[in-house]
Amino acid sequence: MQIAVLLYDRFTTLDAVGPYELLARLPGAETVFVAKEAGQIRNDQGSLALVADRPLAQVTRPDIVLVPGGPGSRQAMRDETILDWLRTADATSTWTTSVCTGSLVLAGAGLLKGRRATTHWLSLDDLRTLGAEPTGERVVFDGKYVTAAGVSSGIDMALHLLGRIGGDAAAQTVQLLTEYDPQPPYDAGSPEKAPAEIVAYWRGQADKVLTVQD
Amino acid sequence: MQIAVLLYDRFTTLDAVGPYELLARLPGAETVFVAKEAGQIRNDQGSLALVADRPLAQVTRPDIVLVPGGPGSRQAMRDETILDWLRTADATSTWTTSVCTGSLVLAGAGLLKGRRATTHWLSLDDLRTLGAEPTGERVVFDGKYVTAAGVSSGIDMALHLLGRIGGDAAAQTVQLLTEYDPQPPYDAGSPEKAPAEIVAYWRGQADKVLTVQD
Repeated sequence: MQIAVLLYDRFTTLDAVGPYELLARLPGAETVFVAKEAGQIRNDQGSLALVADRPLAQVTRPDIVLVPGGPGSRQAMRDETILDWLRTADATSTWTTSVCTGSLVLAGAGLLKGRRATTHWLSLDDLRTLGAEPTGERVVFDGKYVTAAGVSSGIDMALHLLGRIGGDAAAQTVQLLTEYDPQPPYDAGSPEKAPAEIVAYWRGQADKVLTVQD
Repeated sequence: MQIAVLLYDRFTTLDAVGPYELLARLPGAETVFVAKEAGQIRNDQGSLALVADRPLAQVTRPDIVLVPGGPGSRQAMRDETILDWLRTADATSTWTTSVCTGSLVLAGAGLLKGRRATTHWLSLDDLRTLGAEPTGERVVFDGKYVTAAGVSSGIDMALHLLGRIGGDAAAQTVQLLTEYDPQPPYDAGSPEKAPAEIVAYWRGQADKVLTVQD
């Protein structure tokens, strides 16, 4: 079971690392971080680089493809090398997945046409423009295509996938070992729950958000 | 506001990246990943390296110190260079924090003596042995010392800290933008909630867990 995590300039770190941390604990899983070229890939905030151990050309048949989001998704969704790799990998993958605006990259590759999918709450309209059918759910399964909402939702996606792949006990084991018993001190994690003035402000800043925060 | 995230060989990635992703979004925050020497630091699973942009010697007065856990904490807690750096940084820090077995490293530096603190549920006894007073809470504040339980709990710790530092609206904004509205499909994230047979198995495997999973 090979899991390939795609990196590109200005990805959002938790989008990749959240589901990676859980999925990679599946017994027998081999995870590889890939990018157009192997080496250091700098994130959206500029303060952290992750290392892609292998170039895309060397990892063409992963069982699971994971595409994180981030402001750099705007470039990645137009990068033919990345899109070609996604189409090739998807041809034989068991699961093709994304977190946050990673779904825009999948959609850019033509993989979500007419499919139910999701993305960061500020990018749902973009996802529709690209031919998918956005839903308000946190994790969306449509056949082998699994998309998660913003940033932290990839952790929930990973638990769903672990259950489908390894069974309930495997997923529960990983949840226990990563102590994923969320207790946020606020209840502001979605536009339905956050204070209305904060939601309104960020909707108004969407252009800025899409370069800085998505 | 400078945030220093300590890396060392065989750290657990989400311990560092979870709180980083949220804390670094605080307006005016500057985050730097540090290690004994600058360069690539490989994680516990072996499949990912993060880049420490600066060596410890160059970052001596951070406002926030964040120490992740991981199997490598067993070496880090005995590494005098790391312990000296922690004591120096702690002398002027506003907040000294850890996730998972990162608290064992803080305790190894003598910073948690007699303090209420926490760690991964399988390491609570070790924390007591090192002179702290472990609690069963997910996030523990004792003055400026803030410790979180296993792996994913650092995200909750970050939200608490954001509230203390920037106020409720700042924390809620970050929660909304990272869409932290947890919806795990299982309720197995603590030893009190997970199926008893899974908890018993891992308690029995604690020695193995402490090299592989903590």
